Amino acid sequence: MNRIPVGVLGATGAVGQRFVQLLAGHPWFDLVAVAASERSAGRTYGEACAWKLAEPMPATARGLVVRPAEPGLGCELVFSALDAAVAGPVEEAFAAAGCAVLSNARNHRMGDDVPLLVPEVNPDHVALIETQRRRRGGRGFIATNPNCSTATLVLALAPLERRFGLRAVAVTTLQAISGAGYPGLPSLDILGNVIPFIAGEEEKIERETKKILGTLAGDVVTPHPVTVSAQTTRVPVVDGHTASVFVTLGSDPGVDALKEAIRSYRGLPQERGLPSAPAHPTVLMEQDDRPQPRLDVNVERGMASVVGRVRRCALLGYKFIVLGHNTIRGAAGAAILNAELLHCQGLLAR
Amino acid sequence: MNRIPVGVLGATGAVGQRFVQLLAGHPWFDLVAVAASERSAGRTYGEACAWKLAEPMPATARGLVVRPAEPGLGCELVFSALDAAVAGPVEEAFAAAGCAVLSNARNHRMGDDVPLLVPEVNPDHVALIETQRRRRGGRGFIATNPNCSTATLVLALAPLERRFGLRAVAVTTLQAISGAGYPGLPSLDILGNVIPFIAGEEEKIERETKKILGTLAGDVVTPHPVTVSAQTTRVPVVDGHTASVFVTLGSDPGVDALKEAIRSYRGLPQERGLPSAPAHPTVLMEQDDRPQPRLDVNVERGMASVVGRVRRCALLGYKFIVLGHNTIRGAAGAAILNAELLHCQGLLAR
Amino acid sequence: MNRIPVGVLGATGAVGQRFVQLLAGHPWFDLVAVAASERSAGRTYGEACAWKLAEPMPATARGLVVRPAEPGLGCELVFSALDAAVAGPVEEAFAAAGCAVLSNARNHRMGDDVPLLVPEVNPDHVALIETQRRRRGGRGFIATNPNCSTATLVLALAPLERRFGLRAVAVTTLQAISGAGYPGLPSLDILGNVIPFIAGEEEKIERETKKILGTLAGDVVTPHPVTVSAQTTRVPVVDGHTASVFVTLGSDPGVDALKEAIRSYRGLPQERGLPSAPAHPTVLMEQDDRPQPRLDVNVERGMASVVGRVRRCALLGYKFIVLGHNTIRGAAGAAILNAELLHCQGLLAR
Amino acid sequence: MNRIPVGVLGATGAVGQRFVQLLAGHPWFDLVAVAASERSAGRTYGEACAWKLAEPMPATARGLVVRPAEPGLGCELVFSALDAAVAGPVEEAFAAAGCAVLSNARNHRMGDDVPLLVPEVNPDHVALIETQRRRRGGRGFIATNPNCSTATLVLALAPLERRFGLRAVAVTTLQAISGAGYPGLPSLDILGNVIPFIAGEEEKIERETKKILGTLAGDVVTPHPVTVSAQTTRVPVVDGHTASVFVTLGSDPGVDALKEAIRSYRGLPQERGLPSAPAHPTVLMEQDDRPQPRLDVNVERGMASVVGRVRRCALLGYKFIVLGHNTIRGAAGAAILNAELLHCQGLLAR
Repeated sequence: MNRIPVGVLGATGAVGQRFVQLLAGHPWFDLVAVAASERSAGRTYGEACAWKLAEPMPATARGLVVRPAEPGLGCELVFSALDAAVAGPVEEAFAAAGCAVLSNARNHRMGDDVPLLVPEVNPDHVALIETQRRRRGGRGFIATNPNCSTATLVLALAPLERRFGLRAVAVTTLQAISGAGYPGLPSLDILGNVIPFIAGEEEKIERETKKILGTLAGDVVTPHPVTVSAQTTRVPVVDGHTASVFVTLGSDPGVDALKEAIRSYRGLPQERGLPSAPAHPTVLMEQDDRPQPRLDVNVERGMASVVGRVRRCALLGYKFIVLGHNTIRGAAGAAILNAELLHCQGLLAR
Repeated sequence: MNRIPVGVLGATGAVGQRFVQLLAGHPWFDLVAVAASERSAGRTYGEACAWKLAEPMPATARGLVVRPAEPGLGCELVFSALDAAVAGPVEEAFAAAGCAVLSNARNHRMGDDVPLLVPEVNPDHVALIETQRRRRGGRGFIATNPNCSTATLVLALAPLERRFGLRAVAVTTLQAISGAGYPGLPSLDILGNVIPFIAGEEEKIERETKKILGTLAGDVVTPHPVTVSAQTTRVPVVDGHTASVFVTLGSDPGVDALKEAIRSYRGLPQERGLPSAPAHPTVLMEQDDRPQPRLDVNVERGMASVVGRVRRCALLGYKFIVLGHNTIRGAAGAAILNAELLHCQGLLAR
Repeated sequence: MNRIPVGVLGATGAVGQRFVQLLAGHPWFDLVAVAASERSAGRTYGEACAWKLAEPMPATARGLVVRPAEPGLGCELVFSALDAAVAGPVEEAFAAAGCAVLSNARNHRMGDDVPLLVPEVNPDHVALIETQRRRRGGRGFIATNPNCSTATLVLALAPLERRFGLRAVAVTTLQAISGAGYPGLPSLDILGNVIPFIAGEEEKIERETKKILGTLAGDVVTPHPVTVSAQTTRVPVVDGHTASVFVTLGSDPGVDALKEAIRSYRGLPQERGLPSAPAHPTVLMEQDDRPQPRLDVNVERGMASVVGRVRRCALLGYKFIVLGHNTIRGAAGAAILNAELLHCQGLLAR
Repeated sequence: MNRIPVGVLGATGAVGQRFVQLLAGHPWFDLVAVAASERSAGRTYGEACAWKLAEPMPATARGLVVRPAEPGLGCELVFSALDAAVAGPVEEAFAAAGCAVLSNARNHRMGDDVPLLVPEVNPDHVALIETQRRRRGGRGFIATNPNCSTATLVLALAPLERRFGLRAVAVTTLQAISGAGYPGLPSLDILGNVIPFIAGEEEKIERETKKILGTLAGDVVTPHPVTVSAQTTRVPVVDGHTASVFVTLGSDPGVDALKEAIRSYRGLPQERGLPSAPAHPTVLMEQDDRPQPRLDVNVERGMASVVGRVRRCALLGYKFIVLGHNTIRGAAGAAILNAELLHCQGLLAR
């Protein structure tokens, strides 16, 4: 198989670093270009990037020269970790130039002809790419992955929705600081503290969940009718978003059936054996006090939603806790899995 | 006015220390006795107690000799900060010996003839003390305050329940480590982490809320019909329990009326000007990112529930955040305010 | 006594907030003006300032209109919490306009005619103000307090230097995040981490300590001959700089004499009863595991250096731990105590 | 090559878990026995052990039945992670029964005939094993690795001592909480705090460093004449001990030569290619703000001392920062590397 050259836009930021780390040694993709702001352009990645991951910077990335985030990077697949303040037009320019843009930015997620993909959940939404190509012309396109907390939540909801139907979700998140990027939150704000607000986050969870679980018919995704209500908080954790979830299902299957649905859930990435796919996209823990970010965030290399404390709720039916890695399954890992899905479906081929 | 001699049971623990700190300089009560386990007995409080509060140990407490937790302490009012493992029979022994026992322990809270008091919310439940005296004989009695997270929650719910009715509550707590006492949580478990479980806490929130908001008729408290469902978590915060609350009210008053109800709420402690009463038992913050434990836990000297982010919820009607000081309004301060209420109603007089 | 109107430059920053908090209710000084960057100017302090202290914003400050940091604030005494990037010329302008400038910024600390004051240690250096006035003309002047970690260290060294002589100091600091201001350190850098570097800090400790302990003769401060070598680190603590100190004294007095020197140390602020003076500028703790930031940073309202673990060192003679409040004795409180000293010596009078 | 069956004593504790994790997949050693207190004995390791590492429990260990820590485990090599309160006689019993005991406990480290080994530094001290066998009889023996903070420090000192001589060391440590085991430090003591004391730690650093760097002649290790003075603190970091070091060398080589000595240091484990040996036992970082625990603790899989900020010190000659992984190179990894050294020298053969 021919290897595919890829680039990362916004490569020096927190999510950009995670892309670079996850792409090192990827069996299909070769990182050939890193792009960032004008300020960084022209220096090597090793010089320009204040690397903040505990895993060392891949040697192959260190010597790449950082380039401006403009088309002409020599690759037809780019991952976008751009800040939302600039992602909109830049991603459009790359798509117009014929690139497949796999974006983690929020800008285009809710676009009518832009798929918002979770490969285990709505791989059929890939068809929107053809709509997008038809409308906008050319081979390029934009495909997106959800917001970090939505990614964790929706993966846990999907097996329930598929098997039992889903009517209502009330969710409270406890989100890690790496979700705010770098420099992100000032330490004086979060050390020994909780901040009960993340700008725009609740709206994203409420809207994106409905689109991902929605139905594609013709060219249109009809959002899922589930009612989602969220409160989001920031806690002093480095990696790993935890969510406390109360749900009303379409039926009353009992706790054991719920657990079994979570334990046995598989999707297309598992069937096709995509390189970044977790063996189990949803992992069930039975211990009372799990999942915990410090102990469980790396389950399935950060690509699973880890569910625990599944039990009945006197008010809404059921309640549970779910944990996911916000910069892996919630960002860079999600976009890479999306690219693998598209490649496997022939959408990246010339 | 004659000052009232008081004792603290379990005085060397985390809540016991808070009692000792809050009683220093109290206008009505004189701390004359501190009691703890056999291991501590016989040494001065200054020697026996590993003081863990940022406020210094009161000089007046330092020289008190720690005594065993047995009747005969020379005071007819004792505050109990005993561990639940021993509180049951010890508190009963003090009551049988004629003492007023103001307990923070969970053991007797749900007793049929034991008032579970929040002075702004259910001061009429004080009448259970007469029932208790009648049943058990003698002047002594046990009166309790709620669990720390319940205390914060119920104070925020009360103005809504009183004005609009209350049908349902889904609550997720983010609780501080001081709520687990000392030594409490191992640091390896909580540093940079979230633990999604606190043993017994959810049941306490669900039961105690219904009792406190319940109706006393004759000798019986009928629990409030509200449905309460809780998930509780521990976060790396020293003091201050935060709760994310979704509520369904009996009517749909609109956000402004809700805010006004919270802002204007007052109760008997405010009317009577009890020494430990906050001017405002419920404080409303309008900034998006408040309340926060580090900045707001000491509002009203830790005796208020601080509410923020009040807004509509598409699922349950309304949602908001509430913060309270878990060892002040959630423990020692609550018991002291209860004692002030009882004194003011003549129940501590000879 | 006539009250003295004062202003705070850089009032919205971390140290500026501490000035505003400490000046509320000051017996001599009235806060009449708050100045900050152009961006904040024109709004009320309550609106312009993102207050980050656990103590609430003083009501008297809330309504003050923030003004640009230019002379003409209507007060002849200003406290400067300006960032070093702008403090130099702004402070000079205020001095040239006739103001007494009590500065916490580093810019002028090492100026030949600028006193670097610790009132308990070198009150005689106040005489440099006359030199400064003579050289620069006019009544205005600049007087400074030391860097936050120097302030804590030098106060602990002074009783030893005065009594036994001081030859050498090797110090390692563990500094709190509030010392870096706001926004200061990104949380991703410091949560669960140690950063073994603070730009410029070691040089400040080494130079400032020698100037403060130095001798004024005529118009010149001759630095103390002590050799000081520092390594500085940042740790995840909100308030309170800890230092591990190894010292060689001029004689070998024994541990008991050292402790006694620390315990009994008093200076001019204590003799004169200055309002912000701690009763004991150096406090000795005998427990093995003290001082600790969380428990001891507020000893003497944050105005003391708290010393513990005093013992022999096989290499340099003696070693000990010292803790101080970095934004009180290490910044705003220090400048206010300096102003009190100057007022008491007639240097603020018309 | 025949694989060697090994056991771990104290296998359920914090260091015991690290042994189990590091031994999984070891090319020479097979973990066949886990022993712990009577309380755990009889249950499987998966049931008995509250696993606290972020890496998952090895599947091969999960089903092992925990046995009492008594000879007869079916292996002639045991690693001891026993608590010092019980390690003394238990380790002696295993040695008397013919086992090679590789101990992380402090009890026997300073024994005259017990080698205290760092394979890159003093592999010749292995000869003490013959002395020990001769004196005590039998094939069994006890060999030890240093205390966690000593391990990190001595590895950084060794290249300097070997090349330039070493006269004096003043060291301040900032130690991680995992060094205190589990449950270890209460979270109320260390969250947002520094504790300036670790019982017994300073004496260990001072004594063990001298023994490791000492000279074996005949049957006797003569301690190195270097003077070592330590102050030790605990900081809120999960893994990774940082030390601030001031040193006086035997000559004045200049900073570049010092750095070169650190960069180029190699020892027997590197020459022989021992499986757990780091490629570079001492790693030099040139960035101002490194090493940091969160970013650098896993350099060389936690088996190196990472050195930064090497520069001149006006007082003692040179100063620098060093970081090491306290439960890998500072405990379990050190003991395993010792075992590899002994095996390679034929001391484990029948």
